[in-house]
Amino acid sequence: MSRKQMVRPGGRSARVQAAVHSAVRELLSEVGRDALTVPLVAQRADVTPSTIYRRWGDLQELLSDVAVERLRPDGEPEDHGDLRTDLTAWAEQFLDEMASASGRAYVRDALLGDPDGSNAGQCSAYAAEQIDVILARAADREESAPDTETVVDHVVAPMMYRILFRPAGLDTAYARQLVTGLLGRRRAA
Amino acid sequence: MSRKQMVRPGGRSARVQAAVHSAVRELLSEVGRDALTVPLVAQRADVTPSTIYRRWGDLQELLSDVAVERLRPDGEPEDHGDLRTDLTAWAEQFLDEMASASGRAYVRDALLGDPDGSNAGQCSAYAAEQIDVILARAADREESAPDTETVVDHVVAPMMYRILFRPAGLDTAYARQLVTGLLGRRRAA
Repeated sequence: MSRKQMVRPGGRSARVQAAVHSAVRELLSEVGRDALTVPLVAQRADVTPSTIYRRWGDLQELLSDVAVERLRPDGEPEDHGDLRTDLTAWAEQFLDEMASASGRAYVRDALLGDPDGSNAGQCSAYAAEQIDVILARAADREESAPDTETVVDHVVAPMMYRILFRPAGLDTAYARQLVTGLLGRRRAA
Repeated sequence: MSRKQMVRPGGRSARVQAAVHSAVRELLSEVGRDALTVPLVAQRADVTPSTIYRRWGDLQELLSDVAVERLRPDGEPEDHGDLRTDLTAWAEQFLDEMASASGRAYVRDALLGDPDGSNAGQCSAYAAEQIDVILARAADREESAPDTETVVDHVVAPMMYRILFRPAGLDTAYARQLVTGLLGRRRAA
C-alpha cells in the first residue's frame, strides 16, 4: 500500500500532501516534466525536500500519486435512461480522456512510479466503480446486464491496452464498437 | 523509432548492441536492477559509457530495449490441428510468461523507457504476429475465425490490462475463458 494512503484528512500530513500535490500540478504546467525536481517542488510547497523523500521515496512515486489523483472521476456517470446508452457514453468519455496527451501521461506516470502496484490498482478501481454505478442502475430498471469484470475485460481492457501498446484507430467509433460487441453478444445468448 | 532499429546486423554497431544487451542480462541476474548503472554495464560490455548514452539515451531506454528482446517469441506457436486448441494453448502460455515475475518486470521496463512508444508497439506486434500465424492455419483448414484485431481485443488486451492494473485471478482458467468467450460468440453468430 502506498504511503499516501496512511494520511488522515485534516491533519498536518493531509495539508502537506495537498500542498505538495498542488505544487507538482502547478510546476508541471509552468516548467514541464523534464525540469521538475524534488527541491523545486519542495520550495513551491514550502516543505523541506526530506519531507518529500520521506513520504514519497522519489519524484517518480510522487508523480504517480499525483497522476492517480488526476485520474479520479469527477462524479458519477450520467444517467441516460438505459444500459446501452449509459455504457456507450461512459466508454466514449473514458477513451477521450485517457487517450488524450495528458491522459496518456497520467496513465504512464501512475504505472511507472508504482513499485507495489497500488496506484495502478486504484486506476482500475476508479473505472470499476463507475461501471458498478451504471450496472446498478440497469439492475434497478430490470435490464439484463453483464457483470463488472466482464465489462472491464470487454470495454476497459481493450481501450487501455491500445492506449499503451497499439495506439492507432482509437476514436469514438472504437469505443462504441466495444460496447456493441459486449451487449450484442449478451442479447444473442 | 528507437535508435536500435537503425543498427545493421554484422557491423560494429550490431556487435556493440549484442555486447551491451548481454552485459545487461548478466548484471540483472548478478547484481539486480537497483544496483545497475550505465558505467557498470559499459565496463562489462567493454565499451565506454558515452557509447551507451549516445545510442540509448539513458539506462531506462536501454532496459526497455533489452526487455523487448526478451519478450520476442522463441518461434511459431504450436500447431495442434484446430483453431480453438491453438489459440487456447497460445493464450495460456502467453499469460504464464507475461504474468510471471520476470515477465511483468520486462513489460514494465519495455513501457517505461520508451518515450516514443516504439517498444510497446513492438511487444504488441509480437503478439499479433503469433496470432496471425494461428489464424492463417485456421484459414488453411477452412475454419471460421475472427480477425487478428478482434483476438487482440478479446484475448491479449484483457490479459495485459489485468497484469498491469488488476492482477488478481490470472490463471490458466482465465486464459481459457477468454478464448471460449471469443470463439463461442462467433460460433453463435
